[in-house]
Amino acid sequence: MQAVVMAGGAGTRFWPVSRRAKPKQFLQITGRQPLLVQTVERLSPLVEEHSIVVVLGEEHLDEAAGLLIGKDIHLLAEPVGRNTAACIGLGALYLGHLGLTGPVAFLPADHYIGDVPGFLRTLEAAARLAEDGSIVTLGIVPSRPETGYGYIKREGGPTDINGESAFQVAEFVEKPDLAAAERYLAEGTYYWNGGIFVARQDVILSEIEEHLPLLSQGLKEIGASIQTDSFDETISRIYQGLPSISFDYGIMENTRRDVKVVESRFGWSDVGSWLSLYELRASEHDLEGNLKEGNPILVDCKKSFIAQRGKRKVACLGLEDCLVIDTADALLVADIRRSQDIKGIVELLKGAGEGNLL
Amino acid sequence: MQAVVMAGGAGTRFWPVSRRAKPKQFLQITGRQPLLVQTVERLSPLVEEHSIVVVLGEEHLDEAAGLLIGKDIHLLAEPVGRNTAACIGLGALYLGHLGLTGPVAFLPADHYIGDVPGFLRTLEAAARLAEDGSIVTLGIVPSRPETGYGYIKREGGPTDINGESAFQVAEFVEKPDLAAAERYLAEGTYYWNGGIFVARQDVILSEIEEHLPLLSQGLKEIGASIQTDSFDETISRIYQGLPSISFDYGIMENTRRDVKVVESRFGWSDVGSWLSLYELRASEHDLEGNLKEGNPILVDCKKSFIAQRGKRKVACLGLEDCLVIDTADALLVADIRRSQDIKGIVELLKGAGEGNLL
Repeated sequence: MQAVVMAGGAGTRFWPVSRRAKPKQFLQITGRQPLLVQTVERLSPLVEEHSIVVVLGEEHLDEAAGLLIGKDIHLLAEPVGRNTAACIGLGALYLGHLGLTGPVAFLPADHYIGDVPGFLRTLEAAARLAEDGSIVTLGIVPSRPETGYGYIKREGGPTDINGESAFQVAEFVEKPDLAAAERYLAEGTYYWNGGIFVARQDVILSEIEEHLPLLSQGLKEIGASIQTDSFDETISRIYQGLPSISFDYGIMENTRRDVKVVESRFGWSDVGSWLSLYELRASEHDLEGNLKEGNPILVDCKKSFIAQRGKRKVACLGLEDCLVIDTADALLVADIRRSQDIKGIVELLKGAGEGNLL
Repeated sequence: MQAVVMAGGAGTRFWPVSRRAKPKQFLQITGRQPLLVQTVERLSPLVEEHSIVVVLGEEHLDEAAGLLIGKDIHLLAEPVGRNTAACIGLGALYLGHLGLTGPVAFLPADHYIGDVPGFLRTLEAAARLAEDGSIVTLGIVPSRPETGYGYIKREGGPTDINGESAFQVAEFVEKPDLAAAERYLAEGTYYWNGGIFVARQDVILSEIEEHLPLLSQGLKEIGASIQTDSFDETISRIYQGLPSISFDYGIMENTRRDVKVVESRFGWSDVGSWLSLYELRASEHDLEGNLKEGNPILVDCKKSFIAQRGKRKVACLGLEDCLVIDTADALLVADIRRSQDIKGIVELLKGAGEGNLL
């Protein structure tokens, strides 16, 4: 089995800890390792290192190389971000040139997975199903009527694959409103689309050829230059002009192939905000529901996330539902329930010419 | 007219801006000058510089000398704090040795006064009344049922002194509970005791002799050493053993002299907490009721006080009634309505051996 780890995100949601130079996948926000390293290392029972391709932004190549030092992993830099279809296509193309043609797991680099053995079992079942040319997504069993994710609707009864339940996919559904999300949750035939799927690399490339011909054309030009002197020049020139479209929208919603979903219950989170990180780390909360990093002083605080990441002493009094993230050069204080809106602050910083803080 | 400015406070209420080495009277928290400098300078139309004695802690002598440089003001250091009776007695003693025997205004160094001309008119009326040996307090007209101050109850009708209204004092009342404070406010014959009063220096010393004989004895020994080589040694030795008692409790509540109160409406505050400072500076609030220092970024915040006093960028999102004070080495985030309880944080810091932050 092979893997393409998608590490191209530029996220601002964890500002002030995440910065342009160090987006979420490079942060050590859950556990002891940065998310990218966790993503790669949890694959090791299933995927050999030299069968992993990490696709990432050119500007993050050094950061990733440093984190993955000593590992025989392929780092593939995109000159610019062109959404997931291009990223996935590039990864598939590269694996083909390496002569690796088995099922490929395509995974975001910045997700949290609680139950790693469960995750690997699910992935293995998906790989088994993908061998015949199917595209097999992992469907996260929803725990709340989340409006921030897309959904996968299943149809028919389950097929058992080594104890895992697989279904035919009826349709992919874009992010719903709350009423629809509540209905999906009640119906029990919908999964969250976590963006993890398994398919053969040749299947990916032929799907791109069929549905995204411009992207396919560009990838072929890039492919022809792999392992030649003109690779850097070619990818730089071609990538700019590639269509920016998501794989879900460009391929998944249009494919005529067999699309399956494997029911997934391995404690998944996309760690999409400070609030979701706070919730994810519930086992570290104190009796009042506070999550602390560093050594802050708390008096009468509850349900708050207080991170002392700089050298300054942080002291908090009487806070509730509060997020305090103190770093060496910037401080964020927010209502933690508003942590989806941190983008607004980053936009203001941009507008104020505070680029050094981004 | 002379003045004794009491600058001995060690306050922790403005942590992390106030520290042991720099308590409130040395902070620039209202207007452009530290409170001590404002206190001294607002006296200038009434009191000549060389008739002002500032009594303060030994450890703050350098700080005060720096702030008052170029002014012909007497700085008198207490080796240790021994409450207001000792401080007032020492000031009175010292003025006597300078040959200054007119009415003396005794004033805390760390109060805010909004209407300086009004304050000076009130003080002048009080000085006029004090000439005959009366003790004359300034009674602040209360604006709310405050339980944090002592009260002064007047009796009888007013005497007009150049347009100011003076009354006999019926009694001094300790800090009341809320029900009593509400009654005082409704009755209209009670004032806040702001701790400002006027009396002749010989009156002060004879009152101390009558009611606080131990303090009187100590002051006499110190007095005998003034302008001799043994002054420093004497005051160090004697001051330790002086009784620690407030002037209100030791003298005002027991005196048999004539005690008067001049009604005061000059926009007074003891600036007792971050909340009171926030309220005091209402004219600087933005439309959402936020008070900003430095250049913080605020998104959807209201009724909050955000001070960026260090070099770090401060960004706030969705806050209400929140206090954020960021300094070079410490950060405070609090519910601003809890700002009376900051002492608790200072105690914890002390217990945690973080003395460098105090």
